[in-house]
Amino acid sequence: MADTTDAACADRPVAAAAFGLAAGSDVVGENLLWLAIILMSARLFAPLAQRLGFPAVLGELLLGVVLGNLSLFGVQLFDTIAKDPIIAFIAELGVIVLLLQIGLETRLADLIKVGPRAFAVGALGIVAPFVLGAFVVGPWLLPGLNANAYLFLGATLAATSVGITGRVFRDLGKLNIPAARIVLGAAVIDDVLGLVILAVVSSLVKVGSVSVSEVSWIIAQAVLFLAGSIWIGRLIAPHSSRWLARLDAGPSMLFAQVLATALTLAWLAHAIGLAPIIGAFAAGLLFEPLFLKDFNQPQIVREIEPLIPASAPGLADKLRPILLKHSGHQHEHMIEPIGYFFVPVFFVLTGMQVDLNTLADPAVLGVGLGITAVAVIGKLVAGLAAGDSGKWLVGWGMVPRGEVGLIFAMVGKKLGVMNESMFSVIVIMVILTTLITPPVLTMLLRRRGE
Amino acid sequence: MADTTDAACADRPVAAAAFGLAAGSDVVGENLLWLAIILMSARLFAPLAQRLGFPAVLGELLLGVVLGNLSLFGVQLFDTIAKDPIIAFIAELGVIVLLLQIGLETRLADLIKVGPRAFAVGALGIVAPFVLGAFVVGPWLLPGLNANAYLFLGATLAATSVGITGRVFRDLGKLNIPAARIVLGAAVIDDVLGLVILAVVSSLVKVGSVSVSEVSWIIAQAVLFLAGSIWIGRLIAPHSSRWLARLDAGPSMLFAQVLATALTLAWLAHAIGLAPIIGAFAAGLLFEPLFLKDFNQPQIVREIEPLIPASAPGLADKLRPILLKHSGHQHEHMIEPIGYFFVPVFFVLTGMQVDLNTLADPAVLGVGLGITAVAVIGKLVAGLAAGDSGKWLVGWGMVPRGEVGLIFAMVGKKLGVMNESMFSVIVIMVILTTLITPPVLTMLLRRRGE
Repeated sequence: MADTTDAACADRPVAAAAFGLAAGSDVVGENLLWLAIILMSARLFAPLAQRLGFPAVLGELLLGVVLGNLSLFGVQLFDTIAKDPIIAFIAELGVIVLLLQIGLETRLADLIKVGPRAFAVGALGIVAPFVLGAFVVGPWLLPGLNANAYLFLGATLAATSVGITGRVFRDLGKLNIPAARIVLGAAVIDDVLGLVILAVVSSLVKVGSVSVSEVSWIIAQAVLFLAGSIWIGRLIAPHSSRWLARLDAGPSMLFAQVLATALTLAWLAHAIGLAPIIGAFAAGLLFEPLFLKDFNQPQIVREIEPLIPASAPGLADKLRPILLKHSGHQHEHMIEPIGYFFVPVFFVLTGMQVDLNTLADPAVLGVGLGITAVAVIGKLVAGLAAGDSGKWLVGWGMVPRGEVGLIFAMVGKKLGVMNESMFSVIVIMVILTTLITPPVLTMLLRRRGE
Repeated sequence: MADTTDAACADRPVAAAAFGLAAGSDVVGENLLWLAIILMSARLFAPLAQRLGFPAVLGELLLGVVLGNLSLFGVQLFDTIAKDPIIAFIAELGVIVLLLQIGLETRLADLIKVGPRAFAVGALGIVAPFVLGAFVVGPWLLPGLNANAYLFLGATLAATSVGITGRVFRDLGKLNIPAARIVLGAAVIDDVLGLVILAVVSSLVKVGSVSVSEVSWIIAQAVLFLAGSIWIGRLIAPHSSRWLARLDAGPSMLFAQVLATALTLAWLAHAIGLAPIIGAFAAGLLFEPLFLKDFNQPQIVREIEPLIPASAPGLADKLRPILLKHSGHQHEHMIEPIGYFFVPVFFVLTGMQVDLNTLADPAVLGVGLGITAVAVIGKLVAGLAAGDSGKWLVGWGMVPRGEVGLIFAMVGKKLGVMNESMFSVIVIMVILTTLITPPVLTMLLRRRGE
């Protein structure tokens, strides 16, 4: 009975892990270290990038590129992170928190004001790159492929990843300029239309035709989700806030309500095929500061105000907005530290997906550069629809393809319609659009600021 | 080429997930919903428990018990959460953040002052339950088993899980009373000695003898880790803080340094076989507010001070400490929101591990109650060593076995030394010690407060 197994020493770390982790807990241990490394090095790289005049997010992306390609120099240390599902989930939480923050800092009314313009930009931003890719540049640069392959290339060029642009606008405190609102609105439109185009192209590849009812259902679901979640959310939120504040008026309740709503809508968006970040953005839009008035005056106001002497009349009124802004009590500020922790994980992991090997074949690289040019031009054309509100900013804001473009390409690869060299070309396009955009946006924003 | 695969519609959610998640991304979607449910219901249950006079943590634990046992009523909905590695990792992060917070709120000097007393309590808290379990109550209540089985039972009774007690002390704002410090110090000693006893018992089971050099190595590693990380950390932290503040004096850098240190030490503790939370606690101890003085005066001070009129002399000096306390700039307060998010996940998941089926067999339940009594008495005996500093509080503070006891039992089961009924008895003991302690501690603390 005594000597049945062999693993007492190997079991020792098991004894240290929490309940659910009893199996395979060494991965958990390692992930703690990876998170520490990503967190700390992102914080070190970001200011270094900023000193060189680049946006912080470029520092995080390049850090990811470096870590993800150390294997070229024989260092395999970081290869497991890039594929680890736990780190991937933390990264996903990161970009969800980022879009929640962006949503909280955007007033719905402002977004509705730019609605028609955002719709035009979003629609043109899908149509222009799709047409250019599928019917012009695809057949020209990659001759001899199936027509479906060009359609898929076009669909991939139509994708937009709003995380990177949102981050740049937010870091520079420019979320409130009209161009930022147009980009955000257009990105939502883009995600819905991108989903439609992916479904249409997939259906063409599989059964050779498009079912109008299926496409209508996708559009109906997406519109119902967006309009429904924001409309119903705004009806419920004031009442639920009052009710929750009665139960516990502390900051943790406030915070839980906002974050749980974001996670739920992210899940719902994901469930109907949209990007989870679209759900998180919707959650941010539905909470307005007014709904949260039932939560207590923060402790800081209650402690400071009695100290203000009668000899300084009106001082309390002057101080209160500043105290509120900084008190860490407002939901925006409570979510900030969660962002500090998770958001860099998303961008570093995004950088780690960049495989520098792809750039080694000159022929592929040449075609990749051509496709990248088309990818940029297609979105810059869409930006023209923004009119005076910063057409270059809006156009460049739509350029990064990020994870969305790559996932489109993966679907094409799975369907057997996209071959290895076309996939590599798309990876190059995704890398370049993702890395070029942050410095270009920063430059454009700084020039406007002067 | 066109109709090779079948999964375009099933692929649609894939198109929505982030890079690394392209495979199996539906789990990610579901986990977002689980986190939202846990976060929100923990926030609802905690104030309900508090209204009934129970500590918040009991609300979270009981919520977990309910969710984890819905399958008894045919609802299988939550069975996947309890086993999901991603949720388990988030829970682990939760208890790491909790112990980091507790460490940050504990001054090392205060802990050293109670050192000898904490050592006596920790050592007695290992010896008393071990002797009672292995040599007295084990052979009496569970007759006819191998001697090694009783040794393992004793080891399991010796374990302490400090997370629950730390949470209760923290929630009631009592981390600074001597009893809390003794419990925290004793828990560290307990974890080291528990590791030694597990190694000794495992070695006895496997090879029939104990290697003195192996045991010495375990002790040396643990002592080296604890003393080394805190001592070296306190040497480095002032310099690294100055250097980091020069790079970026904002709050995100401060926060990253503290959190990354906690994650790294948690990993290191785990790697040498200690509980990760011991590493996180050490990280909390090594940062003192003084080290962080190089980080900027928070924005709030810079905005408020110019507004204070000359007619209110001395007001600025009076306001500054309050502003600093609440500004969300201090590292303790920046970590708070991370705690709000993650800590409930740990306690809900802990509750979900409770299998109410175990309580169904009256014979097992009877023995379980007996062993639970011994588990409580063994730690209350240890509490006597705390002397006047609240011996009952300290004793009860050591009572919860939580995840540590369960993991000890799992090692025993793997080694083949512990049979199913003994395992069930231990599960009952873990359930009861974990659920009874929070209300008892709350009662004892309230009585002292009066």
